[in-house]
Amino acid sequence: MEFEKDNYSTHISQQFNAELETIRTQMLTMGGIVERQVNDAVEALLTGDVELAEQARRIDKQTNEMELLIDEQCTTTIARRQPAASDLRLIISISRAISDLERIGDESSRIAQQAIELAEGNRTQHGFQEVRHIGNLVRDMVKDVLTAFARNDLEMAYRVAKQDRNVDQEYRSAMRALVTYMMEDVRSISSIMNVIWVLRSLERIGDHSRNLAEHLIYQVSGTDVRHQSLQSIKQMVGSDEDSDSDEE
Amino acid sequence: MEFEKDNYSTHISQQFNAELETIRTQMLTMGGIVERQVNDAVEALLTGDVELAEQARRIDKQTNEMELLIDEQCTTTIARRQPAASDLRLIISISRAISDLERIGDESSRIAQQAIELAEGNRTQHGFQEVRHIGNLVRDMVKDVLTAFARNDLEMAYRVAKQDRNVDQEYRSAMRALVTYMMEDVRSISSIMNVIWVLRSLERIGDHSRNLAEHLIYQVSGTDVRHQSLQSIKQMVGSDEDSDSDEE
Repeated sequence: MEFEKDNYSTHISQQFNAELETIRTQMLTMGGIVERQVNDAVEALLTGDVELAEQARRIDKQTNEMELLIDEQCTTTIARRQPAASDLRLIISISRAISDLERIGDESSRIAQQAIELAEGNRTQHGFQEVRHIGNLVRDMVKDVLTAFARNDLEMAYRVAKQDRNVDQEYRSAMRALVTYMMEDVRSISSIMNVIWVLRSLERIGDHSRNLAEHLIYQVSGTDVRHQSLQSIKQMVGSDEDSDSDEE
Repeated sequence: MEFEKDNYSTHISQQFNAELETIRTQMLTMGGIVERQVNDAVEALLTGDVELAEQARRIDKQTNEMELLIDEQCTTTIARRQPAASDLRLIISISRAISDLERIGDESSRIAQQAIELAEGNRTQHGFQEVRHIGNLVRDMVKDVLTAFARNDLEMAYRVAKQDRNVDQEYRSAMRALVTYMMEDVRSISSIMNVIWVLRSLERIGDHSRNLAEHLIYQVSGTDVRHQSLQSIKQMVGSDEDSDSDEE
């Protein structure tokens, strides 16, 4: 009897682990789709490829649906399995992560929309170099934070959080340059505004990638590092990397 | 013995209800603080009151801490009480709501930052009428959605979600006006950009207020209406109000 009960428990526990693994895999799949969407939106803008931009916009519906689906699975799992400690943290972390992934998808969709407006209107080249540069930075952040999630790699998560500071600096510097371009070339004001919205979206994608890194750190370590300084996050993950410690 | 056990269950259940009520009250308190922050930030911008702007910025630290505190209580309650059905929905709804409240606080903080820059720099009056108008609209949305939460009033939540569409329209129209002002008055470009960021933040506060309305609808009805059309939300809450049904 005792033996059978143990078998039963093991069975339940295996089912539960499979459920958690399914949720985790779905989150990573959603992440892959969003990562692709960021790439396509930036590429569409830089090359003026309207078809690619339309494609990047359409993906949004899919990521919205995935968010609802995964969130429902998270809620059902909590209600049915009543997980505690690290299992509950995993579910909460994934629930928070898909919300940030969905917002990255929203921002990519906005970039694609600006790409379409730019391609149709009086096309400017002002700020394209900045879009390419910051686009590359945030694309790597999205890719790296998903890899960190796949490997439970806190050191990598910390590097993503740290990178967000560079993105913010590059963003501020690009904004100053674009305001100067507007003053020098009044006829381009409207299309430079399109580029400004793109940079703004890229900067927000950087923020959401940092949020994702923080969710992973919570999941693995149990410490909620949201709104904490980079220095505290560094100590939390025990990273040897230089945090520069000149944080704002 | 049975009697004692019942007493014990009642006692546990009363404790649990008190715990849920505490979490709910704290969320509404946080909401009140954020509502005040929105008011102060917009007022500081319109009147050039730097001290009020500094005050609105400082509040941000408090709302960040409240988010962490309430979220931790939500997680602890799930782990200890293992709530099901409507109790679990209440906790999940509050956990989502405080995230949107914190983001409204962030946007208010950004508005206050722009107010400081505008007061210090070459002060423009371009776009102030638009800021006042849209500021009033989103301020009412924040106030109304918190009242809806306090009263579990889905009809009111629907009206907030509906109002977001008006804010989006007013925002687009204000943006067109501001781009025209920039072309007409090149020396004001930099300060008009400050106003543009303010309008952008107000528009985002409108989005977060709609999100809050959706979380309440999920909490009360059990249906996750995120990413749904206004028409579906209307049907869900059984509102008699005209939804105009000309949704994008």
